Amino acid sequence: MKISEIGEFGLINRISKDTIINPKNILLGIGDDCAAYYASPDKIVLATCDMLVENIHFTLSTCSPRQLGRKAMAVNISDIASMGGIPCQALLSLGTASSTSVEFIDQLADGMKEEAKLFEVNIVGGDTVRSPLGLVINITLIGEVEPDLIVKRSTAKPGDLIMVTGELGGSAAGLILLEEKKYSSVPLNIAEEVKSAHLSPVPRIKEGRIIARERLANSMIDISDGLASDLTQICGASAVGAKVYASKIPILSAAKEVGGLIKRSPLDLALYGGEDYELLFTVSPKKADDVIKLLKKELGTRVSVIGEIKEEQEGIKLEDLQGKVSDLQPKGYNHFRKTVTGDVPCSCS
Amino acid sequence: MKISEIGEFGLINRISKDTIINPKNILLGIGDDCAAYYASPDKIVLATCDMLVENIHFTLSTCSPRQLGRKAMAVNISDIASMGGIPCQALLSLGTASSTSVEFIDQLADGMKEEAKLFEVNIVGGDTVRSPLGLVINITLIGEVEPDLIVKRSTAKPGDLIMVTGELGGSAAGLILLEEKKYSSVPLNIAEEVKSAHLSPVPRIKEGRIIARERLANSMIDISDGLASDLTQICGASAVGAKVYASKIPILSAAKEVGGLIKRSPLDLALYGGEDYELLFTVSPKKADDVIKLLKKELGTRVSVIGEIKEEQEGIKLEDLQGKVSDLQPKGYNHFRKTVTGDVPCSCS
Repeated sequence: MKISEIGEFGLINRISKDTIINPKNILLGIGDDCAAYYASPDKIVLATCDMLVENIHFTLSTCSPRQLGRKAMAVNISDIASMGGIPCQALLSLGTASSTSVEFIDQLADGMKEEAKLFEVNIVGGDTVRSPLGLVINITLIGEVEPDLIVKRSTAKPGDLIMVTGELGGSAAGLILLEEKKYSSVPLNIAEEVKSAHLSPVPRIKEGRIIARERLANSMIDISDGLASDLTQICGASAVGAKVYASKIPILSAAKEVGGLIKRSPLDLALYGGEDYELLFTVSPKKADDVIKLLKKELGTRVSVIGEIKEEQEGIKLEDLQGKVSDLQPKGYNHFRKTVTGDVPCSCS
Repeated sequence: MKISEIGEFGLINRISKDTIINPKNILLGIGDDCAAYYASPDKIVLATCDMLVENIHFTLSTCSPRQLGRKAMAVNISDIASMGGIPCQALLSLGTASSTSVEFIDQLADGMKEEAKLFEVNIVGGDTVRSPLGLVINITLIGEVEPDLIVKRSTAKPGDLIMVTGELGGSAAGLILLEEKKYSSVPLNIAEEVKSAHLSPVPRIKEGRIIARERLANSMIDISDGLASDLTQICGASAVGAKVYASKIPILSAAKEVGGLIKRSPLDLALYGGEDYELLFTVSPKKADDVIKLLKKELGTRVSVIGEIKEEQEGIKLEDLQGKVSDLQPKGYNHFRKTVTGDVPCSCS
């Protein structure tokens, strides 16, 4: 069945089912001119949005509508995580062709709802429009955080250690395998692991909350454009420099294996690939052990020290595996550039 | 200069200038992973979004980027008005081709900022992405309203009078003239008036606030899809019927004149055209005089009684100019239908 057969209001009715997970503060969900809800008193509101465009951020030949829906929600949740916040309410704008099947939209919406449910996010509103030239998804996510716990990207301090959750490079390796079918020599389980890293990122909400709650970080960002690019964002916003040690960057074992098989530097995948949605944050040295122990103990999450924040005039440097120090290039995904900076494809949301 | 020459971050820097009109409660505007601000204590949050797609909602051959920017913001502000609320913070997602000129985006953003400034709305966040197939704009607008003053669409009561601000049909007449060049017989001043009604709608925030503040309305909606369609929304949400008198519908004089010249029923323009962004609301009969007098006195705004709310089983009826009563068809713009319902073009956001 096509959307044209049920029309806009039929579509809205289908999408709006099971969208309120946490009804406590909700006065109006989907169905009026605006959503209406009570914000938590004494908290700061966080708001973020991401627009995903077909064949720029995703290709329907390499991901299912359910995966796409989950990821579209997850990347926004990750932005809330990077402030130390809690996600609360989402608004979904969806542009699609009239000839799109209702089943496709059902699966896309189901994916969003699954991800939203995991993090107790209500989908409270949105818009559905015709977009004949391709699928466009915009999710706006509203969250909250305690005023004294918010973690910004602009408050890194010289002397801070640079830390990262989890392991990097998996998403970029996965995207290469998804886009280029020629790499059939990669063992299936390895290929599945990196594809999953790309298609099904897990927002680090719990980690972000612990880091915020315990006041462990001076600054934080999530890795969406790539470690090099996102660290450059922290440094620019904080007016500081940085030094990163290639030898200390945690690279996903499967990404290393894929890198070897397809002749791509695993370090490049980790530095410039992006979309790992790990948290990159800076920590006063005296708190570093607490971070590592606490995240290990409470969540089993690995945290690595990969470098330190320097004075601004020292620049942003990378010490490579041979000990040679050079400028860290903020390569990564940059919309609108004629040539995408960096040599790793990383355009999938 | 093209966007490809300044890249994503250059574009964000340009857009983010002069976006905070009302800095009091803003902790972080554009530039971090999330916007961060304090919500007003003791108020309900309102949130709405609209996605506009090139050649569906607008055509760049018939409106300037500045007009488009203003209207994209205005239609969201209108949704806040229809709840009796105050608009506060906007998030802007923008999808555009790399070959788009920076000047075009500057003018588009300037239009949004102008409209936002008029209503003291901050643009606190957003996303800029590549969209090779056409311009896509999504604005999410967050507002607020006192819990005891919020006006929903679902609370119309049998016996209520149906009222509307201003005059209808101008936007639909304007769109016809914008789209069809053959109507050169329409006098220039008349053509300009209806084109302006279409391109530059004025959200009825002040009217909505007075209606809310004085507790005058039982239900309210803004006229975006068309009087017939939007009244049907109120009736459906409130489980009531309605009777509308064609003779009482206020039609913009210029729309009547255009209708005569181009042989389109002015009543059809008013009923099914949409995008007038007037407020349609229902009022207990004993308050009707207060509404008319108050909005006239405080704002000089005309308000008309066009019918009354009935029991649900009485259906939604139109008494035409000859006194004949028939079902009011909820014709108007409906995305995704193979044939747009109604015979009036009304696809311009």
